[in-house]
Amino acid sequence: MDFLLEFGVRLVAQLQTPTIGFLVGGMLLAAFGSKLTIPSAIYQFIVFMLLMKIGLKGGMEIRNAELSDMLLPLIFATLIGIVVVLLGNAVFSLIKSVKKEDGIATAGLFGAVSASTLAAATVVLDEENMVFEAWVPALYPFMDIAALVLAIVLANVYLKRKNDEDEEPVNYWQIVKDSLRGSALSALILGLLLGLVTNPEAVYDDFYEPLFRGFLSILLLIMGMEAYERLHELKRVAHWYMIYALLAPITHGLIAFGLGYIAHVTVGFSAGGVVLLAVMAASSSDISGPPTLRSAIPSANPSAYIGSSTSIGTPVAIAVCIPLFVALAQIVFDN
Amino acid sequence: MDFLLEFGVRLVAQLQTPTIGFLVGGMLLAAFGSKLTIPSAIYQFIVFMLLMKIGLKGGMEIRNAELSDMLLPLIFATLIGIVVVLLGNAVFSLIKSVKKEDGIATAGLFGAVSASTLAAATVVLDEENMVFEAWVPALYPFMDIAALVLAIVLANVYLKRKNDEDEEPVNYWQIVKDSLRGSALSALILGLLLGLVTNPEAVYDDFYEPLFRGFLSILLLIMGMEAYERLHELKRVAHWYMIYALLAPITHGLIAFGLGYIAHVTVGFSAGGVVLLAVMAASSSDISGPPTLRSAIPSANPSAYIGSSTSIGTPVAIAVCIPLFVALAQIVFDN
Amino acid sequence: MDFLLEFGVRLVAQLQTPTIGFLVGGMLLAAFGSKLTIPSAIYQFIVFMLLMKIGLKGGMEIRNAELSDMLLPLIFATLIGIVVVLLGNAVFSLIKSVKKEDGIATAGLFGAVSASTLAAATVVLDEENMVFEAWVPALYPFMDIAALVLAIVLANVYLKRKNDEDEEPVNYWQIVKDSLRGSALSALILGLLLGLVTNPEAVYDDFYEPLFRGFLSILLLIMGMEAYERLHELKRVAHWYMIYALLAPITHGLIAFGLGYIAHVTVGFSAGGVVLLAVMAASSSDISGPPTLRSAIPSANPSAYIGSSTSIGTPVAIAVCIPLFVALAQIVFDN
Repeated sequence: MDFLLEFGVRLVAQLQTPTIGFLVGGMLLAAFGSKLTIPSAIYQFIVFMLLMKIGLKGGMEIRNAELSDMLLPLIFATLIGIVVVLLGNAVFSLIKSVKKEDGIATAGLFGAVSASTLAAATVVLDEENMVFEAWVPALYPFMDIAALVLAIVLANVYLKRKNDEDEEPVNYWQIVKDSLRGSALSALILGLLLGLVTNPEAVYDDFYEPLFRGFLSILLLIMGMEAYERLHELKRVAHWYMIYALLAPITHGLIAFGLGYIAHVTVGFSAGGVVLLAVMAASSSDISGPPTLRSAIPSANPSAYIGSSTSIGTPVAIAVCIPLFVALAQIVFDN
Repeated sequence: MDFLLEFGVRLVAQLQTPTIGFLVGGMLLAAFGSKLTIPSAIYQFIVFMLLMKIGLKGGMEIRNAELSDMLLPLIFATLIGIVVVLLGNAVFSLIKSVKKEDGIATAGLFGAVSASTLAAATVVLDEENMVFEAWVPALYPFMDIAALVLAIVLANVYLKRKNDEDEEPVNYWQIVKDSLRGSALSALILGLLLGLVTNPEAVYDDFYEPLFRGFLSILLLIMGMEAYERLHELKRVAHWYMIYALLAPITHGLIAFGLGYIAHVTVGFSAGGVVLLAVMAASSSDISGPPTLRSAIPSANPSAYIGSSTSIGTPVAIAVCIPLFVALAQIVFDN
Repeated sequence: MDFLLEFGVRLVAQLQTPTIGFLVGGMLLAAFGSKLTIPSAIYQFIVFMLLMKIGLKGGMEIRNAELSDMLLPLIFATLIGIVVVLLGNAVFSLIKSVKKEDGIATAGLFGAVSASTLAAATVVLDEENMVFEAWVPALYPFMDIAALVLAIVLANVYLKRKNDEDEEPVNYWQIVKDSLRGSALSALILGLLLGLVTNPEAVYDDFYEPLFRGFLSILLLIMGMEAYERLHELKRVAHWYMIYALLAPITHGLIAFGLGYIAHVTVGFSAGGVVLLAVMAASSSDISGPPTLRSAIPSANPSAYIGSSTSIGTPVAIAVCIPLFVALAQIVFDN
């Protein structure tokens, strides 16, 4: 009872933060038919700035990190990416009306990670003064790539079996390379490398860090507008996607919270780190995922997976999962 | 005599501020045939940033404001928007060589408000240490919408009478909605709402506030280049527009200054607030107005109203009216 | 022996600065086939911001400068632009397999100045606490224009002699005007004027100065990506360009270092100023030069001059010449 009350209070407070405010504001703008648009050049630049900032920070901290501390969470992040896709594939296989490729692609997108949801979670943790190891966001590509690669491989294996005339083997390494070459992972990994190898503290403190919170507010505004615009895409596909998109973020987050708790007990993984791992698992990819899946599984319907993810999955991940896992962590780890 | 001397000194000092410097710099660039351009994606983003900042600030302050203090200036702002359009319409009706719709559209644009001129005025007031209630910029949409709606209604009524075959009634509510949906008013109102409902102080202080002055300098540079480019548009239309565009800003500003003075005496409206109300009235819309009028009164010639406003109205509003009303306020309110 | 050791240590340290890190990072991204791109609107804006900042700073300092101090370096800067083009033209004339116009255009681009290389050098000097007169970057247009104008004139004179039927005189003044109208020189000169005539200290300190280092990091990333992409252009043209592009920056820089040393002895030109003059001479134009040359000498092959400059000339100027001349200055001027 106390938990529900505490969670309710926390959820209402969360809705008043600018992070959620800008997301809801974007939805209101779209609902009202506003002509306001953020040019796509600005959007691309904002995504670059956010990922470069996250990468630089991660790289600078890995320099000082005990790599042995990082090993178990890293293995868990990869494992979560795999489990989420296998679970989603199993669930959609039970629903005969859902096209096989569409189900796999949706599971892949929910296994992949949203850098902006992750970024929003780091801001919330800062506001809550909940510490986390700075290398935690660097776990993102491991979960992301594992999920996307597995989804693409599952889809290709299924399609190959369906059209059994061609026997060309799947090029797994090519799929890994294509994921790493995407603009999101490229910026993140470049930031990591520059943070590791060079000394970017001055440019980080003067530029990437101070602009981060503001650019994130604009990204959330854009995501709110897009989420509203794509609600209709979801009407065209089965209501099953809606149920999956509502339940998957919480389920995936709880699995990750459990694994994170194991890492907390065994190698002292921080409370904030457990929350971030859960939010990563709860999030679905809004930047790197859609173009990767669209080009790699062309027969899957984008309105199924993008609609579920952007319209329901991401709002649930931000507005429900972030406050849920913060509250859960405060209760679990304060005892 | 003392007033003229003081005003002259103030005007020369004003020409040396970077605000005016960037506007004149843009004109010089265009006059010299420079190939320098600011990409339109950047321009749109700058306008968004400026209006969001003004909106956030206004919203945060309305939270702490006595709404009863705001009521009279709000009524006056709406009234000024209506009076300016009626006055312009009456003046252009006297000149038979000016097409009726062109005159109404020009009056509408001069009744509407330039957010960037308003922004420039707030910077000048800060430099002069002249305080104003932070909700004053929030008066902008009331004047803006009243003027645009009235101009569009007047034009539609005129055109309907001219072609008396169709009897469809004018959809007033649709015109109000279209104005609110424009990108300028959308950003401003969203900022107001976010400032009112969420707690955006951190993102405001770290991002929107520090970038404001710099983005304004770039916007003024762009406006200077455009003003020069559109001088030739004015050559094609009657010299009457030129005379109107020279005199209207000062006349409208003086009417608003008078009403603002009444608000000062009756409800203690600040000296800076009176200046901003006068500058709002003096300004003509350069962002939200032209596309609204172009789509709502398609038979009106854009070179008439945009030419007058951008080439003469806006420079007069910024370079003459801002220093004029600041000087006037310093003399009137210091006694 | 001591010098080589010191230079080696300094070179390795230089490779660890973020300035070089982002350049090399861009090359790695391109080599890895990353899909990361910085939109061209952002690129144009970044170039504008960098040049406006350099111009404003120069203008503000010229206000306080002893113009008599500046005279000799200014004459030397112009002289270096002329000498570099004449030298390059003479060298390429010896190689019969190189097309005459291609050689002249390449010499022109290496005589012109890269604002971003210059900007990188100012950051390195700040990091090394090596002072320089703030008007030194204002020497840039003198070297730049002299080189471009001379190259274009040499090419036009050659082409006119080749096709001796037309006897129209070369319009020298038009070429000077076209150079000044380019977006790079326009932004720099406008910044200079605004810094000289208005009081832009507030907007400079709040906006242009704090964003400078960060925008430069992104520009270097873009330049690294471009440099890698254009390596293949060079394979198509003679290996002579490669040799020229490797040796020219160092040779030109040493000539400028010598002239700068004379200015040091005679009028007290600072150690940092000598380094910047040498880096200006070592750099080749990557922003204003290529479009100017492409439109003014259309028969010259852009893969020759752009390939040499962007792929080899600029990396050599940044990664070799900046640390070389910093180290040289520390040895020469500390005695």
